[in-house]
Amino acid sequence: MNGADALISTLAANEVTACFANPGTSEMQFVAALDGVPQMRAVLCLFEGVATGAADGYGRIADKPACTLLHLGPGYGNGVANLHNARRAFTPIVNVVGDHATYHRQYDAPLNSDIATLVKPNSIWVKSADSAAEVSALTAEAVAASYGPPGGPVTLILPADSAWLETSGEPAIAQKVTRPAPSGAAVDAAARAIKAAKKPIVLLGGQACREEALKEAARLEAAGVTVYSDTFVPRQRRGAGVFLPKKMQYFGEMALQELEGVDLMVFVGTTTPVAFFAYPDRPSVLVPEGCETMTLAERGEDAVAGLGALADALGAPKDGPVQPLKIPEAAPSGGLNAYYAGASIARHLPEDAVLCDDAVTSGTGVAIGTATARAHDVLALTGGAIGIGLPIAIGAAVAAPERKVVSLNGDGAAMYTVQALWTMAREKLDIAVVVFANHTYRILNVEMTRTGAGDAGPKASQLLDLSDPKIDWVSVAKGLGVPAVRCETAEDFDRAFADAMANKGPRFIEAVI
Amino acid sequence: MNGADALISTLAANEVTACFANPGTSEMQFVAALDGVPQMRAVLCLFEGVATGAADGYGRIADKPACTLLHLGPGYGNGVANLHNARRAFTPIVNVVGDHATYHRQYDAPLNSDIATLVKPNSIWVKSADSAAEVSALTAEAVAASYGPPGGPVTLILPADSAWLETSGEPAIAQKVTRPAPSGAAVDAAARAIKAAKKPIVLLGGQACREEALKEAARLEAAGVTVYSDTFVPRQRRGAGVFLPKKMQYFGEMALQELEGVDLMVFVGTTTPVAFFAYPDRPSVLVPEGCETMTLAERGEDAVAGLGALADALGAPKDGPVQPLKIPEAAPSGGLNAYYAGASIARHLPEDAVLCDDAVTSGTGVAIGTATARAHDVLALTGGAIGIGLPIAIGAAVAAPERKVVSLNGDGAAMYTVQALWTMAREKLDIAVVVFANHTYRILNVEMTRTGAGDAGPKASQLLDLSDPKIDWVSVAKGLGVPAVRCETAEDFDRAFADAMANKGPRFIEAVI
Repeated sequence: MNGADALISTLAANEVTACFANPGTSEMQFVAALDGVPQMRAVLCLFEGVATGAADGYGRIADKPACTLLHLGPGYGNGVANLHNARRAFTPIVNVVGDHATYHRQYDAPLNSDIATLVKPNSIWVKSADSAAEVSALTAEAVAASYGPPGGPVTLILPADSAWLETSGEPAIAQKVTRPAPSGAAVDAAARAIKAAKKPIVLLGGQACREEALKEAARLEAAGVTVYSDTFVPRQRRGAGVFLPKKMQYFGEMALQELEGVDLMVFVGTTTPVAFFAYPDRPSVLVPEGCETMTLAERGEDAVAGLGALADALGAPKDGPVQPLKIPEAAPSGGLNAYYAGASIARHLPEDAVLCDDAVTSGTGVAIGTATARAHDVLALTGGAIGIGLPIAIGAAVAAPERKVVSLNGDGAAMYTVQALWTMAREKLDIAVVVFANHTYRILNVEMTRTGAGDAGPKASQLLDLSDPKIDWVSVAKGLGVPAVRCETAEDFDRAFADAMANKGPRFIEAVI
Repeated sequence: MNGADALISTLAANEVTACFANPGTSEMQFVAALDGVPQMRAVLCLFEGVATGAADGYGRIADKPACTLLHLGPGYGNGVANLHNARRAFTPIVNVVGDHATYHRQYDAPLNSDIATLVKPNSIWVKSADSAAEVSALTAEAVAASYGPPGGPVTLILPADSAWLETSGEPAIAQKVTRPAPSGAAVDAAARAIKAAKKPIVLLGGQACREEALKEAARLEAAGVTVYSDTFVPRQRRGAGVFLPKKMQYFGEMALQELEGVDLMVFVGTTTPVAFFAYPDRPSVLVPEGCETMTLAERGEDAVAGLGALADALGAPKDGPVQPLKIPEAAPSGGLNAYYAGASIARHLPEDAVLCDDAVTSGTGVAIGTATARAHDVLALTGGAIGIGLPIAIGAAVAAPERKVVSLNGDGAAMYTVQALWTMAREKLDIAVVVFANHTYRILNVEMTRTGAGDAGPKASQLLDLSDPKIDWVSVAKGLGVPAVRCETAEDFDRAFADAMANKGPRFIEAVI
């Protein structure tokens, strides 16, 4: 076998069985080697940002890494934005970046670049396999590193000759580290502080927003501790039968207003909340003055164990509050808006769906409706780099083919990685895509005022506007192979979404709002 | 004025008058400041790879930098691939990357990342303007740095508070360095070596392929020296009345076969030719064994002066050979292919058009036809990162609104930055887009064999194939606002291309081959 065979068989031996790929010449050996490893599913993406976003979605749902296959520095570059999001979600991903043959690098051929530097900001581990003999061991090391905890994207650089030269041996096996439970001292300290505080809150993030952790967090709420979650959570269980913590508000001054009087914040799977952006004369750190902060469970620790132990220490009841199942009986009617869309989504969303949210301003409206829908997982935009909603849905659908996936997108956001629609069509993925077409970067109209930049003049307004020309999303989606429909009323949307839920395969809904 | 005003007025004072932008919250001050500087044209791009590719096209045609406006690390990341191409083209570009306010960086908010490291591989100059007071001076320094020579992309990081805080003073003016002429010693050495050599060649790249330089290079050809150009040239004058050097072959072994017996290579505006990729048992360096190499003009030197002096030293005639005007009278007929497309392009291409070539396998066919078309400039893919053909055409059209721009693309390549079509529609740019739809990554089918990876199995084949589903390019282009037509025969294409040349504004042609 050659280095490429060693790489793929090592990945498979470590349960990495999905590859989101956009290969070039330097990756041909990898591509050829795929047919030798039946467990490995290869998914072609027509742009690398689709591949990396898909790997993020896969990792969040499968709780194990997918690999990406990227073509030298520029190929990796195209994937940077969604790797930034994945880093912020602590999602395990193994990026395989093809490079020139080791002896060819010195000649600085046109596609040559400093890959090791380029990948550094968004890789928690980087190595180059500079000989075929070390491919297997480094691959296992990469997989292990991607898990953390708390985990994240890693990058294995694979020079072409390391892929084509012969090697031998059994696939190396990754040594995974399991998440340790928080120390008894941390639990005791948190319990003591909570008992002593007048208005304590617990703030959940990351793993603490998964199903099991929320059960324990609900017990804290039942014991009188208000529970919050981060504004953007990699994967949150939500809907009927699930505890719904309050959400940290997006705008800092609103968050601080809501937190007024809080004298203790206990972090579980997250850290000190900060404003998404700075604004003139607005706060950066979202901790009220004089409020004590402490960490019960670090991001890499076992949040379920920590929350359970804290609930026990506080003498909390065995069960806490959960959301009721409350679904509108009738379809909403009239002009379409995000709230009506949310109501219809709640009406038709099947049990255990995955809801991918890259709809910056419309997502909030939808979330109101889905708060009491059938239980589902929500994958949010963790790093603020819009353009994840379509790719992450691909990854979720590949990871869980039996679950219905819904992808919610702003029209501005969906354009970044619109190529994803083609992969949905090719792989016949069970994804309903909704694009909220307001034909503007809506959030930026708000931000223009908040940053103190004043009223937008004609040139400034043009840079926030998507209405000239209006994108015909149905035409674009159909062109990329996905059946598509435009909805201008709430009734239209309800019908279209019901239809998408009732049928397998990719569907596209342009929601005109 | 605030820092953003200082930035834009300094750019304008230094003749940087085009901005290709995809802004976010941290760039709102920059956006608001645009209306205060009438000279600055702002062009919204719906994806950052469009913005950076457009800036490359602008710089190649205008011979001065455009600026880009990018949103923190992820925004820059999306632009990396085309900045790689621009770096390889030595195109001056001033990237303005918005960042969190200086005091907010420490909190590591979701969009925070190590921008300085990320931009390093593709920036020939990087600084962060960490106070409003230093914005103007650093902007002028950035502009100067972008010119080199030989020039390239630079990155100015602009924290939000440096943009919104007040400052004062006149715009700083960039100190540009002009290209020095090669030394007399270098000219003498080259002349002596050429006279002594049995089979000398001169290899042109970069500035040496511009119109004036080719006139001097033609004199060398007339004096018996065979003149070659690099395979991929940032901007080459081509067509009737222009000297056409031989082109270095793409595949190394073919290049070496053609160069057999060459005992001297003189480089002008380029350096030692190397194979685009390494392959098992194939050459990396494309210099025949025993062949002497020397440099007449470095990339940053004045190629026209160098070539002229060399021609004089060799006693070359005042004029050398140029291409005749030779245009097929009749439209080609039958099934469409790249050669027929080239014939039609030659028939209808107006004088002084700009031809952007991102059609890896079809471009060669077209180039045969256009070799004797009316004189035009060709902008090639210098860095191998496909996805430049649409964006670079935007930049060329903004730089030279009076020139017709033609954008040639493989279908695989065009998908990377398909969002560019919307900007063409919004700005009503005079661009004819041709996408050669062969529904495969054709080049990779060739490379699969050449890399010794063997025959592609079913999974491998899937990763090279774009036919399932077939992209309906007409539907996609229309959806993004560009009038579009599909051509399946040579006659169809000839008619459609003639129509595109006869009318102003963006047109899209899907060439089914």
